[in-house]
Amino acid sequence: MSTPARTLHLNAFLMSTGHHEASWRLPESNPQASTDVRHYQNLARIAERGKFDSVFFADSPVIFGNVRRRPAGKLEPTVLLTALAAATEKIGLIATASTTYNDPYNLARRFASVDVVSGGRAGWNVVTTAGPDAARNFGIDDQPSHATRYERAAEFLDVAGKLWDSWDDNAVLADKESGIWADADRVRPINHDGKHFKVRGPLNVPRSPQGYPVIVQAGSSEDGKDLAARYAEAVFTAQQTLDDAQSFYSDLKARTAATGRDPHGIKILPGIVPVIASTEAEARRREQELDDLINPEYARIELAKTLRVSPGDLALDRQLPQDLPHEDSIEGAKSRYTLIVDLARREKLTVRQLIGRLGGGRGHRTFSGTPEQVADAIQLWFEKGAADGFNIMPAVLPSGLETFVDHVVPVLRARGLFRTEYTGSTLRDHYGLQRPLNRYSGALAGVGA
Amino acid sequence: MSTPARTLHLNAFLMSTGHHEASWRLPESNPQASTDVRHYQNLARIAERGKFDSVFFADSPVIFGNVRRRPAGKLEPTVLLTALAAATEKIGLIATASTTYNDPYNLARRFASVDVVSGGRAGWNVVTTAGPDAARNFGIDDQPSHATRYERAAEFLDVAGKLWDSWDDNAVLADKESGIWADADRVRPINHDGKHFKVRGPLNVPRSPQGYPVIVQAGSSEDGKDLAARYAEAVFTAQQTLDDAQSFYSDLKARTAATGRDPHGIKILPGIVPVIASTEAEARRREQELDDLINPEYARIELAKTLRVSPGDLALDRQLPQDLPHEDSIEGAKSRYTLIVDLARREKLTVRQLIGRLGGGRGHRTFSGTPEQVADAIQLWFEKGAADGFNIMPAVLPSGLETFVDHVVPVLRARGLFRTEYTGSTLRDHYGLQRPLNRYSGALAGVGA
Repeated sequence: MSTPARTLHLNAFLMSTGHHEASWRLPESNPQASTDVRHYQNLARIAERGKFDSVFFADSPVIFGNVRRRPAGKLEPTVLLTALAAATEKIGLIATASTTYNDPYNLARRFASVDVVSGGRAGWNVVTTAGPDAARNFGIDDQPSHATRYERAAEFLDVAGKLWDSWDDNAVLADKESGIWADADRVRPINHDGKHFKVRGPLNVPRSPQGYPVIVQAGSSEDGKDLAARYAEAVFTAQQTLDDAQSFYSDLKARTAATGRDPHGIKILPGIVPVIASTEAEARRREQELDDLINPEYARIELAKTLRVSPGDLALDRQLPQDLPHEDSIEGAKSRYTLIVDLARREKLTVRQLIGRLGGGRGHRTFSGTPEQVADAIQLWFEKGAADGFNIMPAVLPSGLETFVDHVVPVLRARGLFRTEYTGSTLRDHYGLQRPLNRYSGALAGVGA
Repeated sequence: MSTPARTLHLNAFLMSTGHHEASWRLPESNPQASTDVRHYQNLARIAERGKFDSVFFADSPVIFGNVRRRPAGKLEPTVLLTALAAATEKIGLIATASTTYNDPYNLARRFASVDVVSGGRAGWNVVTTAGPDAARNFGIDDQPSHATRYERAAEFLDVAGKLWDSWDDNAVLADKESGIWADADRVRPINHDGKHFKVRGPLNVPRSPQGYPVIVQAGSSEDGKDLAARYAEAVFTAQQTLDDAQSFYSDLKARTAATGRDPHGIKILPGIVPVIASTEAEARRREQELDDLINPEYARIELAKTLRVSPGDLALDRQLPQDLPHEDSIEGAKSRYTLIVDLARREKLTVRQLIGRLGGGRGHRTFSGTPEQVADAIQLWFEKGAADGFNIMPAVLPSGLETFVDHVVPVLRARGLFRTEYTGSTLRDHYGLQRPLNRYSGALAGVGA
């Protein structure tokens, strides 16, 4: 297991004007940024200047929250990634897409296409999409159960994997003389016939530069961790404390090893919302300034929805009520539910304080401080078995990303923790992952014609 | 109805190394072009240099034909269009997508996103996707009937239209001071509940620059023409003779008027496969050279499949058998079936000759000649009530498109038939189509806050 010096992986989690829900109200912010492709091209270039591994977009096929409260329009992520591919050269491009509300053939094809167009820089964050609101955009009155969604997700990944392998890497002969374009024996139907899907194949896109996109997973429920252990190559997770992050890290690495996979083949990246300034006091002032821009009434309504209670049950200046539903009864985003309740109970937060913490990073760890303090926080978790890298979630964009790239990245580099140049050209290269063998012809790769 | 001088609309129908199935075998061709984004960026730039209205990609979620015979990999078209948006500035970008094998919410969102990213240049060629092979990639053992597919297509367009109008153009207030991002009364659920779809909405993308993508239709069956009359703003059609094209043109304009629409709001563009050279003899020699590269055995198998007969029923040097199925029994691409049979019977073609004609343009009109002769052919149909413009389908790419732009377009311009500069920036501008009013708030557009 000895390898060259282990270094951090950094992903820029991009979201309109920033992860703080009130960031759009700052004078510096463009409130139309959520659908402005130039805004995202600028962000991707900043992240690439910082030699980040990747940029990433969360997504759901539904309007998130109240349109009065914050920017709600979102470009479809595979379209957005393709626009970013044209504006960048090396950085990885990760889009979220739902296994519950897509067909495997179409989605596998779209990601293969993005991988081709970007020269091998595509990643897919696999989500099962919690919540009844999304279901109602697809003819379903309530969402499928958590267990059913994850069962479908696993089969979806099996089908997608087969489709991505349906062409051998050397299937295209392009023999003009004989008039044979491809070897038909190396382009095969997959004939999948399972519980959720029946798909003949082959895909109509040849095997892509990375074989298939890097598989990313972000749910931290038991089902989510099991799915990640079987399929994921990178995991984004929300962890508030070092203890919890260490437990999550060791648990997921062990689950991955238990499936027969190399635990180095799954990179674990907790989220962090850094608020950076030249002094700690200034950073805290900046954070408070943002929290003060939150409208607590909208936030209370959304929190009540997440917690499955009525807004009237949540008094702004009191702690959460004691009699909340148990996680097992939640069919939505289980791990997020638990994280919020645990955070409030552990830190004895009032609803107003909890709203501030959630408004800042939606359950991810916020950290205000100087560039050195942020680098310290990152280094500590990285060296204490809690992270292979971080999902950087700037509170305000683009300024928060620029500050991170210009002031924190140099500190991490000086400590030998982060790259100064890209050493490869694909997303798997950046994450130190192997290009996968073709499941059908893998054993024969390099052998034969 | 008097308008400024009526001028042609030209769409470049792009397909890997060209529309002639053997084009990939020419020394000049890149046989990997079908998945090479730089190839398509180059083609789109050539078409834009020629001030074409648009470029267009056909598509189906299945491998088309035999991978031995010709380039078979195809990038997903909305991804490809987005990559082309980054490489061009003005030209329209039309992708094909199936109403049978997509969900309205996802597809409406994707096209809205492409329209945003391209600054209002997106078009959607609506297809219902004939054939059992595509069905089998989506868990369906045989395709839905022709009538069912078209019924679903109409409802799909209704749902998509509602989703595209679910945000008023002025819904986003972005009022930083009051903290109100959008007017919630101007972002509305659509609550569609129909035979094929139940969709709540609203879409999670604001109304796009064109309101919605230009709707294009290409099926010429009775169902296809009725769908076009109700929804289409441009129609691509395969017509072999002036008589047939005139009948199709006047029929479709009349059907459109009968729905209460302005018949100028639907532009009819027959396909033409021009093979251009400095003399007619040289052009014919070039065409023959391409036909000689067709492998007749593969072609015979595919023709037999299209005609629903066994390959053994088709003798290469004889005409088609008399006892072919009647069009009414065909659940696949009805209009294409009829066109092929009519062409063979009318011109008394042997199977080998028919294969040459189909290999050259898959049922579209081929025309070999000098630039002036090609311009004459275009002008005749345009002035004789058979076309509002043409779907230009070069036999070989990029050379056929370059020749058309450099040698035919100047002749059309000299005759006052085609633009010398773009006068607008959206695809609707190029086609002379109005930006559609919002169905919910249209009557109030420009009124109120």
